[in-house]
Amino acid sequence: MEFFFKPKGIALIGASSNPYKGGNSILKNLLKGYKGKIYPVNPAYPEIEGLQCYRSVTDVPDPVDLAIVFVPARLVPNVIRECVQRKIPGVMIESGGFAEAGARGQSIQSELKQICDETGIRLWGPNCMGLVDFISKRVFSFVSPTLWDYEFIRGNVSLIVQSGMLSAGFIIDTMSHGVMGISKVCSIGNKVDVNECELLEYLLEDPETAVVGLYLESFANGRRFLEICRSSRKPIVVLKGGKSVKGAAAAMSHTASLAGNSTVISGTLAQAGVVEAVDFKQMLDLCRSLAMYPEIPRKVTGGVAILTYSGGAGIVSSDFIDKTTLSIAELSQSTKDALEKIYPEWMPVANPIDLWPAIERGGSEMAYGEAIKAVCDDPNVDVVFLHYYAGGFALNFDISSLVEIARKSNKPMFCWLMGEAEKARKFQTNTQNLGVPVYRELYRAVECMAAVFEREKPEKRDLPAASRSAIFEKYKAELENRTGALDEHISKKILAGYSIPVVEEKIAVSAEDAFDAARSFGFPVVMKGILPGEIHKTESGLVRLGVSSEEEIKKIFGELNIKMAGKGKILVQRQMEGGLELIAGMVRDPQFGTCVMLGLGGIFTEILKDTVFAVAPVSHREALSMIGRLKSQKLLNGFRGFAPVDRGILAKIVVSLGYLGCDNPWIGEIDINPLIAGKNSLVAVDAVIVPS
Amino acid sequence: MEFFFKPKGIALIGASSNPYKGGNSILKNLLKGYKGKIYPVNPAYPEIEGLQCYRSVTDVPDPVDLAIVFVPARLVPNVIRECVQRKIPGVMIESGGFAEAGARGQSIQSELKQICDETGIRLWGPNCMGLVDFISKRVFSFVSPTLWDYEFIRGNVSLIVQSGMLSAGFIIDTMSHGVMGISKVCSIGNKVDVNECELLEYLLEDPETAVVGLYLESFANGRRFLEICRSSRKPIVVLKGGKSVKGAAAAMSHTASLAGNSTVISGTLAQAGVVEAVDFKQMLDLCRSLAMYPEIPRKVTGGVAILTYSGGAGIVSSDFIDKTTLSIAELSQSTKDALEKIYPEWMPVANPIDLWPAIERGGSEMAYGEAIKAVCDDPNVDVVFLHYYAGGFALNFDISSLVEIARKSNKPMFCWLMGEAEKARKFQTNTQNLGVPVYRELYRAVECMAAVFEREKPEKRDLPAASRSAIFEKYKAELENRTGALDEHISKKILAGYSIPVVEEKIAVSAEDAFDAARSFGFPVVMKGILPGEIHKTESGLVRLGVSSEEEIKKIFGELNIKMAGKGKILVQRQMEGGLELIAGMVRDPQFGTCVMLGLGGIFTEILKDTVFAVAPVSHREALSMIGRLKSQKLLNGFRGFAPVDRGILAKIVVSLGYLGCDNPWIGEIDINPLIAGKNSLVAVDAVIVPS
Repeated sequence: MEFFFKPKGIALIGASSNPYKGGNSILKNLLKGYKGKIYPVNPAYPEIEGLQCYRSVTDVPDPVDLAIVFVPARLVPNVIRECVQRKIPGVMIESGGFAEAGARGQSIQSELKQICDETGIRLWGPNCMGLVDFISKRVFSFVSPTLWDYEFIRGNVSLIVQSGMLSAGFIIDTMSHGVMGISKVCSIGNKVDVNECELLEYLLEDPETAVVGLYLESFANGRRFLEICRSSRKPIVVLKGGKSVKGAAAAMSHTASLAGNSTVISGTLAQAGVVEAVDFKQMLDLCRSLAMYPEIPRKVTGGVAILTYSGGAGIVSSDFIDKTTLSIAELSQSTKDALEKIYPEWMPVANPIDLWPAIERGGSEMAYGEAIKAVCDDPNVDVVFLHYYAGGFALNFDISSLVEIARKSNKPMFCWLMGEAEKARKFQTNTQNLGVPVYRELYRAVECMAAVFEREKPEKRDLPAASRSAIFEKYKAELENRTGALDEHISKKILAGYSIPVVEEKIAVSAEDAFDAARSFGFPVVMKGILPGEIHKTESGLVRLGVSSEEEIKKIFGELNIKMAGKGKILVQRQMEGGLELIAGMVRDPQFGTCVMLGLGGIFTEILKDTVFAVAPVSHREALSMIGRLKSQKLLNGFRGFAPVDRGILAKIVVSLGYLGCDNPWIGEIDINPLIAGKNSLVAVDAVIVPS
Repeated sequence: MEFFFKPKGIALIGASSNPYKGGNSILKNLLKGYKGKIYPVNPAYPEIEGLQCYRSVTDVPDPVDLAIVFVPARLVPNVIRECVQRKIPGVMIESGGFAEAGARGQSIQSELKQICDETGIRLWGPNCMGLVDFISKRVFSFVSPTLWDYEFIRGNVSLIVQSGMLSAGFIIDTMSHGVMGISKVCSIGNKVDVNECELLEYLLEDPETAVVGLYLESFANGRRFLEICRSSRKPIVVLKGGKSVKGAAAAMSHTASLAGNSTVISGTLAQAGVVEAVDFKQMLDLCRSLAMYPEIPRKVTGGVAILTYSGGAGIVSSDFIDKTTLSIAELSQSTKDALEKIYPEWMPVANPIDLWPAIERGGSEMAYGEAIKAVCDDPNVDVVFLHYYAGGFALNFDISSLVEIARKSNKPMFCWLMGEAEKARKFQTNTQNLGVPVYRELYRAVECMAAVFEREKPEKRDLPAASRSAIFEKYKAELENRTGALDEHISKKILAGYSIPVVEEKIAVSAEDAFDAARSFGFPVVMKGILPGEIHKTESGLVRLGVSSEEEIKKIFGELNIKMAGKGKILVQRQMEGGLELIAGMVRDPQFGTCVMLGLGGIFTEILKDTVFAVAPVSHREALSMIGRLKSQKLLNGFRGFAPVDRGILAKIVVSLGYLGCDNPWIGEIDINPLIAGKNSLVAVDAVIVPS
């Protein structure tokens, strides 16, 4: 990819001398920052902006290893063929009119794809804003040259964006505010060839990039994207547009992209260690926070010490922190002693540490200085949250010495800032240059703090082989060519073949046989009629719960047989008493491939949609993380009437489901519903396997 | 209160010539904006800032009807007595050192309270930043005179804040950014006398105030506050600090204020039509949005039309709107036709309305102009959400004509803005002056849009009298002097006396009696042992479910009697089969008085804490609103295995509980758990009434 990022010479095909045209903006941007040779191509001009202009790219002399194309879509295929002929390895197509613009454009885009496949030339775009590199000032984009009116603040956050607005507009907005540095912005457009995966891989190797933020409306290859994220040590932030039903519909009509299921996306991104963003500026705030703290922070207590000049802001901070996995640190005795020395005697020591009375007593340098020393020495404090006001409240201490104390103690520090606009901007720039992120909204500060803190080390996955029994092979062979949903009994045999615990049950060929089963399980039992192809057993009256005597068995055996007109089988099952209902399953996601699902059952599935997904196979630790991501996961700790669920056993079931899916492409879908957690048991009570 | 807001002359007690002292800042602020007479009081100076200085307030000539006090706490009581002597009706005490500063300060504050009570003098503060009036430029505050460096943007949002930071710092921060107008800011401090209720009442009558925002850490009189809010036609926004357990703890130590239960607060605020804020700047954003749309908007479909230059921003907007009660409008055919005319032919018409291709084709004035006309004529569109970029994307139309079209159609318009900092600031100011709120973050725009749209007309409550039966009087008389929790049978009799449906049940004095009951209810039944003072019946083995034969009844009757050692009674109850479990109750809240509670039962109570509160008595409509505020309220619509719950009947139960609480001060607490919703029934199955 080097020829895209560091080309030795550039041909600009579609260069223009008309300042209202993109072909002119690109040229001006190149001239301002790019150090290599620039060759404008346009048969209409002898020269543009003082540079010799060529009739065709084939006429362009060396060195040239990148062509930027800004000509109407219909002309692009020929231009690309000429680039192939000229042996230019990479082309950035910035003009639009392709797949986003109806059938005609779609067909041109297909032609481009074909040229790529046939010739190996690499195409970036089309319908994109190209590349802006803040470090080298390489601007390969028709973004407005207004850009150059502002300072290129060099940073270590790089962006990959599937939206023109985000690449061009957002950058200028950000630059003009002057408080955030950027490394590179890649606008990927229609992704005919180069996509987010390759660019992400490039940026993860880029020494000038510490964090990558992506705005995506579709995944070119979801599975590969996740693998790249998973193996990255650099933090990655993703804002996925088109998660809601309406949003997805918008995505379809906007870039003809496949939006996918938001639950699957959120689950798999979390599994891969990706931080998910929800809004544009919030994505940048998350990125710059993680860029300052790219390493996983130490986590002892998760305790935050709040140093504030405002009791009210301390209180509201506490309310916000209470909603995250962080907590308000319980100050140690030595911190309390230190604070008592600076507080007036009437003031009780507490966290949030309200420093105002101490500032009034001894000045802000003393108050903040002593407080930060105390909390940085405090083993109960993992994070320092400092509130500052620029231009008031007698705050006149030197922030750099405080930052130094926090850095030495290896405790991340975050700063919430109010104040007079210009003074605040200066304080923010200065403090961020010291490596401490500054926020203008309190909630955003806490949100970013939590994101930094909640990151976990990506797991080195060393997955053991699946453990499957001989019985599985028997069933597998028998079923591989079956179509239609398998009945619950066979489905559970297959699950059992992968060590997934299933309820005790038996096909009863006679009432006598059913008695035997019931006697061995203990009364009451469940009796079910298994009819080929019947999915709604309960609605069809084929499920009888609480069968509690031999007499009843006999009666129901007869009734079910009549109902099924002799075509079905009768299943006798141990009745699981009132445990917590879970659901679990396996699906083939069009973007991410084999995924496992876990959820709370019953009401929780129907109304709260409390389910989590992960890409299979999953490790035991990943399965445990999935359990932890269930919104209602506290239910598993046991509560009135329900025993605690063994998370280890539940995780094993999820792991096994993953293997079952990965090993058996003939299975299209698995659904265990319910998976009942009783006292000391966790068993699949009903299940269906659908061949693919 | 006029003497606080429009005093005819002001004595400043504690005036100082030292520019580092608050007593000097107050004087400077007065001199810059206040038009009336100013009388500095300080025995140490003959004159300050060119004004004659008085030894004592008693020496101050007329006119004077407000004293501002900035002397050490210990001197304040005497100063107030002198003000009483001088017949000054109002005093604003801005110095600190009172209840917030330990026992000594607490006792001084009590002394102030006593002076108020005895003399009728009105005290504002202490420990506050007084008043800043942006319209008249009356600044009665020791806020830094830096204030005057910035423009006083006149607005119609007034604030009441229980925090010095919010009054002083926040104002200067806001002024220095220059995009939001303010009317008045009242800093209320320790509220020894004047509190948020009176100030709110004043501001609701103030013609210069359209919206009031409050930051409160405690309620001086929660009940009265809610009544004022409920009867207000002006929108009210409240940010309550100290809602979490930790936040509340912080509130205790900060202003010794009672934080209260966050669920009760949120419920009662919602009931009173108050918009609840969570963060400081977000509160201001909500206020300025509501100030532009103070009337309840028309609500036909709740449909939003998104007019954007960026497909990506349209998609993310859709995702956000999907999370609110708003929706993406289904465009009418005539809108589609109008858009088709401006779109390139390959482009399908959809909402979000991505105007970029139309802008490329015919310019932004045409594209935005035609689009806004179409959506403002569209009966399916209730809200217009316009995206703008200042300084790029060829957006160069005149926003005022678009605003005019939206205004004529009576459709609120909201604007999300990106762009170059200075150009964006100008666009924001200009557009907001036209009455359209502008936001820099997309989510905030949608959040404020939803807040404007979701407001409902405060109900004119004309509550009918409670309907209670004669049986109630009998029980009431019998129980009024009882202590300890009443047993479930008696509790339910009382509920039934207020027309609350209860499960069929009977005290059985013999096994034969129990047979009779079971026969009339139908098997299976529930048998319970009722033992005086026993609250944990289930845990004590006194509840037997599914009793399904006479034989069993006899056996259990004996067992329960043995268990209770002859001391209890035996209750036979119809067994309610598997309906949805709800809970309902009544509590006496220390801040808001009698409140009713409704929640989802079982797992939902234990883990999700899905409960809502309202101040009693509640009207039928309010009870319906409470039901609608349950997070899992969709459950009540019925789903697999559960019949829909009749919301009308449920609301009646809540209304009755409210009356029961209000009519009977002898009751401390009522808890119905569970209230079971079966097919065509909704009955209290277990309940306890605790006398107060």
